[in-house]
Amino acid sequence: MSLNKGNCIIGQSGGPTVAINASLSGILSEILHSKLYNSAFGMINGIEGLIQSKYITLTDFFKTQESLDKLTITPSMFLGSCRYKLPNSNENPQIYEDLFDFFKLNNIVTVFYIGGNDSMDTVLKLSDYANKTNQNVNVIGIPKTIDNDLPITDHTPGFGSAAKYVATSLLEIAHDSYIYNVPSITLVEIMGRNAGWLTAASALARTSYSKAPHLIYLPEVPFNVNKFLEDINEVRKTTKNIIVALSEGLKDEDGNYLAAKESYVDSFGHKQLCGTGKYLENIVASNIGCKVRSVEINVLQRAAAHCSSKTDLDESVLLGKAAAKLGASNVTGQMVCYERKSNTPYQIDISSYDISKIANQEKCVPLEWISKNQCDVTSQMLDYLRPLIQGEPTITYANGIPVYSDVSHLCQRKYYQL
Amino acid sequence: MSLNKGNCIIGQSGGPTVAINASLSGILSEILHSKLYNSAFGMINGIEGLIQSKYITLTDFFKTQESLDKLTITPSMFLGSCRYKLPNSNENPQIYEDLFDFFKLNNIVTVFYIGGNDSMDTVLKLSDYANKTNQNVNVIGIPKTIDNDLPITDHTPGFGSAAKYVATSLLEIAHDSYIYNVPSITLVEIMGRNAGWLTAASALARTSYSKAPHLIYLPEVPFNVNKFLEDINEVRKTTKNIIVALSEGLKDEDGNYLAAKESYVDSFGHKQLCGTGKYLENIVASNIGCKVRSVEINVLQRAAAHCSSKTDLDESVLLGKAAAKLGASNVTGQMVCYERKSNTPYQIDISSYDISKIANQEKCVPLEWISKNQCDVTSQMLDYLRPLIQGEPTITYANGIPVYSDVSHLCQRKYYQL
Repeated sequence: MSLNKGNCIIGQSGGPTVAINASLSGILSEILHSKLYNSAFGMINGIEGLIQSKYITLTDFFKTQESLDKLTITPSMFLGSCRYKLPNSNENPQIYEDLFDFFKLNNIVTVFYIGGNDSMDTVLKLSDYANKTNQNVNVIGIPKTIDNDLPITDHTPGFGSAAKYVATSLLEIAHDSYIYNVPSITLVEIMGRNAGWLTAASALARTSYSKAPHLIYLPEVPFNVNKFLEDINEVRKTTKNIIVALSEGLKDEDGNYLAAKESYVDSFGHKQLCGTGKYLENIVASNIGCKVRSVEINVLQRAAAHCSSKTDLDESVLLGKAAAKLGASNVTGQMVCYERKSNTPYQIDISSYDISKIANQEKCVPLEWISKNQCDVTSQMLDYLRPLIQGEPTITYANGIPVYSDVSHLCQRKYYQL
Repeated sequence: MSLNKGNCIIGQSGGPTVAINASLSGILSEILHSKLYNSAFGMINGIEGLIQSKYITLTDFFKTQESLDKLTITPSMFLGSCRYKLPNSNENPQIYEDLFDFFKLNNIVTVFYIGGNDSMDTVLKLSDYANKTNQNVNVIGIPKTIDNDLPITDHTPGFGSAAKYVATSLLEIAHDSYIYNVPSITLVEIMGRNAGWLTAASALARTSYSKAPHLIYLPEVPFNVNKFLEDINEVRKTTKNIIVALSEGLKDEDGNYLAAKESYVDSFGHKQLCGTGKYLENIVASNIGCKVRSVEINVLQRAAAHCSSKTDLDESVLLGKAAAKLGASNVTGQMVCYERKSNTPYQIDISSYDISKIANQEKCVPLEWISKNQCDVTSQMLDYLRPLIQGEPTITYANGIPVYSDVSHLCQRKYYQL
């Protein structure tokens, strides 16, 4: 297996999820137990930080399985993140030469990069450069994103936990809305700029006694305000308290984001956007006139590790382990993927796929998984989603709050400029 | 004990918490095991619903301890709520006559009312009327509110769970903010219109590695924008990512709510408020100019039962049990209270107190528990708060989401008008 024993380096990039550290933990766990590499380094703030020579020795931080188990349930990125697009190697060869000099100097034979579709562009560029220049460095991508919008892989690490948080929160918001003897409409804005997967997951909040969300709007379907008001009025005929799940990325029929439609000028003269939920709240208030509120679930949908999906975290660890093995074999330019074998019982295999077919691509919700009335999802969608939110990891609490891995190194002066 | 065996009726009123059903569960549990009453009725939508003859027989819904255990962890109100101020009995004697006729007809000897300071006004008026008219009906108040602003009782049911959710979310938001190599300021808006207890609880998010929230602003102290900007600039000297906890109820030195200071006119010509967080976000962006975002934790801080404090729920059940016993003895016009005996080890007793000293009163944070620099809380505050968020109840999950009590009766047509 470990043909090229040496060191490896791992980076995390893009927006946070609660499973991106689980994949890191999986890689490190495999290294700890299988001794695939001598040392594992970690880029601080992704490839952008590494270009500035910011890195740590991960094998110093995680010497035991116990420390890795804590890392597995830690939200956001232990290594920090960046949103940085590597220039092409012919545009800026110096960056590549410096990076590969660093790899050589530190006997780094594998680069692992955990991220979304933009981050996979980094994997593609590094692996292409290594091939072109005949360097003995494998580059492996590990997916993550709460948006679930990466192609090829059945789903992405982090999505199941975000989906569980959204569904749980929706049910709790429904309980909160049923209590008054007054008709009400609650609009819940959910993340996902172009892909509606996470908004669709709100449908998992439904129980035998609660049909919330009563309406679901995904960004894959152009949004029509008149139809939206008709949909609400139809539900109002039978339902006192209505919950509507909205993607933050809803666009009108001309392709304009609703969030950009209502703005105001603050006291400093700056234009401020109101957001999709607030915009539609104003429309509902003006046209329907009952009690209306909008709730933005905000950053907690990508950070609320206390409400993670065990399935998501377990799979993310396995994906990290598979990536570690793959990187230690003679494979490069691949992303590890989930392949679904069956829904009942839920079974996945882990495989890998050519990164050039994945980088910079976006997988949206197929239109046939959106119901004909365009304000709900189909049973196929529910069958796809439901396995991903199953199970609750064991979270240790101290002083009443969850115990996560210490991330204070991310705030150390040597790693940043104020 | 049960001198006046008969029936009882229970109501819930005011804003939701995740512990208000735990107190209901405690009352019903005591009744189930001690047979203090023959039947327990439940007002649907509080005293306002009862005036409209809306009620259910609770002993039909909860026949087993198992069903009560599920009720204990169910967020919001099983019986629905109202925000209704009973008129004085001399202004509208008919309402009182009708209510007490209903009590007599149904052999109701005790009324339990679970709520905040406004709801305790109902307890006061009903018990005064019963006394004045020599009716054999005891009226007992059970506190609840996430605001923790009821006098006499050491703290209120629901507060500990909201505090645990706020502290947990703050820590997770901190993890989310540390990852970029860019200075940032995150403003987190927390509920509490006049009392800063819940905002103070954000301090419980601090760990050995994370000092967030770095600044805390309570509504008990008049808010000065210049001092706020100076405070932030001071923290910026040493800290890359700053988290600020803000009460939604911050007021300037003239007593004006900050939330009312910035408004905009929407496309329909209606004035819309921006909220405290958004208002200060605009101020920070204009004056400091680094990356700024504001996060409103919103209704989940009072509804997120999946993140409850076991201490809070256990105590709320005990409080309900104590109330049940009190109501079955010859006591009326009292609210059950927590009395703190010690912080370490944490010990409380349950007592009761004259409702006339509690109704319509508000307990704010004592100024000596706010630090001298007015942007933090003292160690006494932390010693007071910490015991209240300890422990995690066992939550059963099905299909990946928590299993709560069926509240579909709240949406039944017979109980509401569309």
